[in-house]
Amino acid sequence: MYRTMLLPSLSAAALLTSGIASAADLPIKPSVGDLVKQSQASDWRPTDPQHTLYMELESGRVVIELAPDFAPQNIANIETLVKEKYFDGLAILRSQDNYVAQWGDPQAESDHPRPLGSAKPKVVGEFSVPLKNDKHFVRQPDRDGYAPQIGHSNGFPVARDPKAGTTWLTHCYGMVGVGRDNGTDSGNGAELYAVTGHAPRHLDRNITLVGRVLSGMPLLSSLPRGGEAMGFYGAKEARMAIKSVRLEADVPEAERSHLEVMRSEAPIYQQVIDAQRNRGGPWNKFSPGYVELCNAPIPVRVRP
Amino acid sequence: MYRTMLLPSLSAAALLTSGIASAADLPIKPSVGDLVKQSQASDWRPTDPQHTLYMELESGRVVIELAPDFAPQNIANIETLVKEKYFDGLAILRSQDNYVAQWGDPQAESDHPRPLGSAKPKVVGEFSVPLKNDKHFVRQPDRDGYAPQIGHSNGFPVARDPKAGTTWLTHCYGMVGVGRDNGTDSGNGAELYAVTGHAPRHLDRNITLVGRVLSGMPLLSSLPRGGEAMGFYGAKEARMAIKSVRLEADVPEAERSHLEVMRSEAPIYQQVIDAQRNRGGPWNKFSPGYVELCNAPIPVRVRP
Repeated sequence: MYRTMLLPSLSAAALLTSGIASAADLPIKPSVGDLVKQSQASDWRPTDPQHTLYMELESGRVVIELAPDFAPQNIANIETLVKEKYFDGLAILRSQDNYVAQWGDPQAESDHPRPLGSAKPKVVGEFSVPLKNDKHFVRQPDRDGYAPQIGHSNGFPVARDPKAGTTWLTHCYGMVGVGRDNGTDSGNGAELYAVTGHAPRHLDRNITLVGRVLSGMPLLSSLPRGGEAMGFYGAKEARMAIKSVRLEADVPEAERSHLEVMRSEAPIYQQVIDAQRNRGGPWNKFSPGYVELCNAPIPVRVRP
Repeated sequence: MYRTMLLPSLSAAALLTSGIASAADLPIKPSVGDLVKQSQASDWRPTDPQHTLYMELESGRVVIELAPDFAPQNIANIETLVKEKYFDGLAILRSQDNYVAQWGDPQAESDHPRPLGSAKPKVVGEFSVPLKNDKHFVRQPDRDGYAPQIGHSNGFPVARDPKAGTTWLTHCYGMVGVGRDNGTDSGNGAELYAVTGHAPRHLDRNITLVGRVLSGMPLLSSLPRGGEAMGFYGAKEARMAIKSVRLEADVPEAERSHLEVMRSEAPIYQQVIDAQRNRGGPWNKFSPGYVELCNAPIPVRVRP
């Protein structure tokens, strides 16, 4: 009888009673799942094989879509590292509850770190970029505490400061960024992290985000938490190994994941957001009429 | 060199540059950790043994603090179930990525569910309660999209609608609620969930929240995700067993966790929130001057 509970289900234009009460049902509206089913082929775009990474863990594949418009220099360096197979045989170094999983070279701080090859040891922090870089930006009208404007650009969650003329990717669940030390240019993409908890939006504009995990998040989010400070694994703890990281373009067609992302500039995407904002149907009794940026789903599917 | 990255570190009254740039450091301010160290014994309160649960999993202990001011009828029923050892030998039924872990009777939908004993089979939904119930409420001034007012009451995150005269617990990470079917009174506390992902605030006022996990969240959040719809475990998947659930009052003193929660009405708690809102120090380059309700930490410690 509880199998239907907490269903992220149907939606409706909303406003209902609260209090200790039995409320009326909200009218039935298409859910996010319904909208995905109704969508047309033109509502989706494939991943760009030149800017999509396949990270093969012992436990399976994590697909990461990069967003070169938002961090061109960092992403170029990451792609150099990937092409030179830098990550092969490295490991997940850190899993901090309600925060991040982070991967790279377990020997990075030793006397014999893995050489960076032709990648740069330091890359300038790309914490925000000019407004023109957020191509196909569609504003999400819901108010946000962390930024003057929010919305989506090309399938990524973004925020904007029109007065400053800047735009940046936001730290929603599954977003991937470049670890750094205190210096803004102290990162280089050899150590990356993915958000595995409640969005740490205070990191926005403090660190370079480069993309988003499209599939395989559970392989990162359900890792055992590390026993040392900040969730780093200690010397005696088992680390999940990275078998390889490859550009999608370098993976044979038959072995690709063939993922598609809903176009955030397609009209149906506004319906998807609204299905979260105004929820209805038999389970929902109260509809918030609002959806926070990091609660707006960005649908991903395997190419039909 | 990356071990210091992503440190939820020092804070400052803030406003800094953005853009591809090397920004100046923010002034150093006490961090949340510093404030916890500076706190006085009077800034903390112990858990109430009559309203705190110890859920003993195969993997360790999860401590759940109940908030009877917000859901008196549901919590009374849960405590009846616990006293009658209803949960002993049951299991975690569901782990859905970026959403919830849920536990109860694997046979609940079969012909032979575990009997509820003297607990009620249906309890009215307590989705919100009168304003007077949020004792020691201290408003958090940061704006919120889901509610007219937000803040903390007795160590729990809450929201308020002053016009409606109602207050309710909010679905932040680690909050615990009562699974239900479509009927508002279809839950009874025999199936509970904890939020393990980005706060699903759209569930606020749609379902009864009863408390918060004070320790042991990683035991729930790092469970393998279930392979069936909505993250339920299939028949062939291993479920984490619940050895027992006890009231703290029924656990011998020597076996208790002795946790304390920072008093949200203590002045130092506003400094804790501000340390998240206005961040400084050598790592932070930009301080948002804002903190979302579910990013405001509520410190918990073992009694010194």
